[in-house]
Amino acid sequence: METKNVITITFFCFLFLGNNSMATNGKKLRRTQPCKSLVFYFHDVIYNGHNSHNATSAIVGSPAWGNRTILAGQSHFGNVVVFDDPITLDNNFHSTPVGRAQGFYIYDQKDIFTSWLGFSFVFNSTQHKGSINFAGADPLMNKTRDISVIGGTGDFFMARGIATLMTDAFEGEVYFRLRTDIKLYECW
Amino acid sequence: METKNVITITFFCFLFLGNNSMATNGKKLRRTQPCKSLVFYFHDVIYNGHNSHNATSAIVGSPAWGNRTILAGQSHFGNVVVFDDPITLDNNFHSTPVGRAQGFYIYDQKDIFTSWLGFSFVFNSTQHKGSINFAGADPLMNKTRDISVIGGTGDFFMARGIATLMTDAFEGEVYFRLRTDIKLYECW
Amino acid sequence: METKNVITITFFCFLFLGNNSMATNGKKLRRTQPCKSLVFYFHDVIYNGHNSHNATSAIVGSPAWGNRTILAGQSHFGNVVVFDDPITLDNNFHSTPVGRAQGFYIYDQKDIFTSWLGFSFVFNSTQHKGSINFAGADPLMNKTRDISVIGGTGDFFMARGIATLMTDAFEGEVYFRLRTDIKLYECW
Repeated sequence: METKNVITITFFCFLFLGNNSMATNGKKLRRTQPCKSLVFYFHDVIYNGHNSHNATSAIVGSPAWGNRTILAGQSHFGNVVVFDDPITLDNNFHSTPVGRAQGFYIYDQKDIFTSWLGFSFVFNSTQHKGSINFAGADPLMNKTRDISVIGGTGDFFMARGIATLMTDAFEGEVYFRLRTDIKLYECW
Repeated sequence: METKNVITITFFCFLFLGNNSMATNGKKLRRTQPCKSLVFYFHDVIYNGHNSHNATSAIVGSPAWGNRTILAGQSHFGNVVVFDDPITLDNNFHSTPVGRAQGFYIYDQKDIFTSWLGFSFVFNSTQHKGSINFAGADPLMNKTRDISVIGGTGDFFMARGIATLMTDAFEGEVYFRLRTDIKLYECW
Repeated sequence: METKNVITITFFCFLFLGNNSMATNGKKLRRTQPCKSLVFYFHDVIYNGHNSHNATSAIVGSPAWGNRTILAGQSHFGNVVVFDDPITLDNNFHSTPVGRAQGFYIYDQKDIFTSWLGFSFVFNSTQHKGSINFAGADPLMNKTRDISVIGGTGDFFMARGIATLMTDAFEGEVYFRLRTDIKLYECW
């Protein structure tokens, strides 16, 4: 009888330790493997006065020295851009979108191109339903930049993690494509 | 002596498992019941040039083809709106507010009404003190939309969860009322 | 043999309880000590048409009744400001910056000065590498205000916590300095 109890307890305790030893301690290092990894591309075509047919974003705020048709001087400092960009699985702008990247970015440094992002990936396909919400600084001249996954809904319920952005292509001040490597460390 | 130990261990282990088995594993499904549920309504009256006495929000950014008095064409794409909306416990605009919903939304899709929200519920009453912070995509033509609770302060210290938005009423482009069902899954 | 097992189990169980009893339970109070505490100051010099040489921020959005050179009436309601502010370890504007505070704030109440913040602390020094991301309501007439740490990268990978803001100094509508006490409750 006692022996049986002991074995049962051992089983539960080790099961529990195995599942949680890295993930639950708020005060210790617990960097683990991602619970989900995803790679997407999104494509931004900024409105410049001549491309309303295919522009996916628009300048909606600028400093006093700028306007809303041309990105401002001083590394576009102060420009606010709203976007609704197609998300694709590969780097081809013409691939069938699997979702939309929607939100805004602001240019927020005068001496180098740097932005701050607040946006969501919105999915409604057979593969993914729900949204992933992002926020963070994007020092876009760096080869890779990390921002935060601050939450998610649907398939990505309560997600947290890191998204690594890479500028995969850009054409002047009209088009850029970002590769986004999403690594979730909290999955529910 | 041994028997006593075994019983003690059993007690602790099962207590622990009961409390945490669903909530602590970063890598597995742990969808549980909310630790707190709250329902509020908030009311947005957008400034249109004629209602400065009771407007609770104002257009502060627009694309080049719009202005700041009338919401732009193309589903208001590019409009940025700052708001300070009363929060009520029921759907009556004239009920005594229990807090303020403060922040911004942007319209970010051309072919359908969709917005992106960054805002807080700010409470300072006998019932609730502190704030709940939200971010996420709001495809507002859907009956229900989920956004993320990304943090909280005071009574809502470190909160995380999901807020489900429902358009409870709207009047043209001047007034809307959102029902907000907040479900917190992380409470401290 | 049994005795040995029992001792082993006891050891593991208590170790586990000790580490996690406050930090892992999604449904109970688990307010603990911060896993990391940091204090910084950041300095905002808003562009007013005459100070382009040292302005660190600019008005980029305003309501219809305002402009982008002077903060609007009604407690600046509707002004959107983009900033790239130096972070210092003490309250001296001329101290060597240890990082940049980059993002935006909006004024979002008509009858009192209140703002909503979305920004990052960006570090790239020997002491700190990475970023801390913040969001929340800042009722700036209060002596202290709490906003959320919604994520982090690099040294602050996956961080969550609370930042307490205090207005350490202000000069008219051109300069303010915020003391920021960061307390992280989730460290990885």
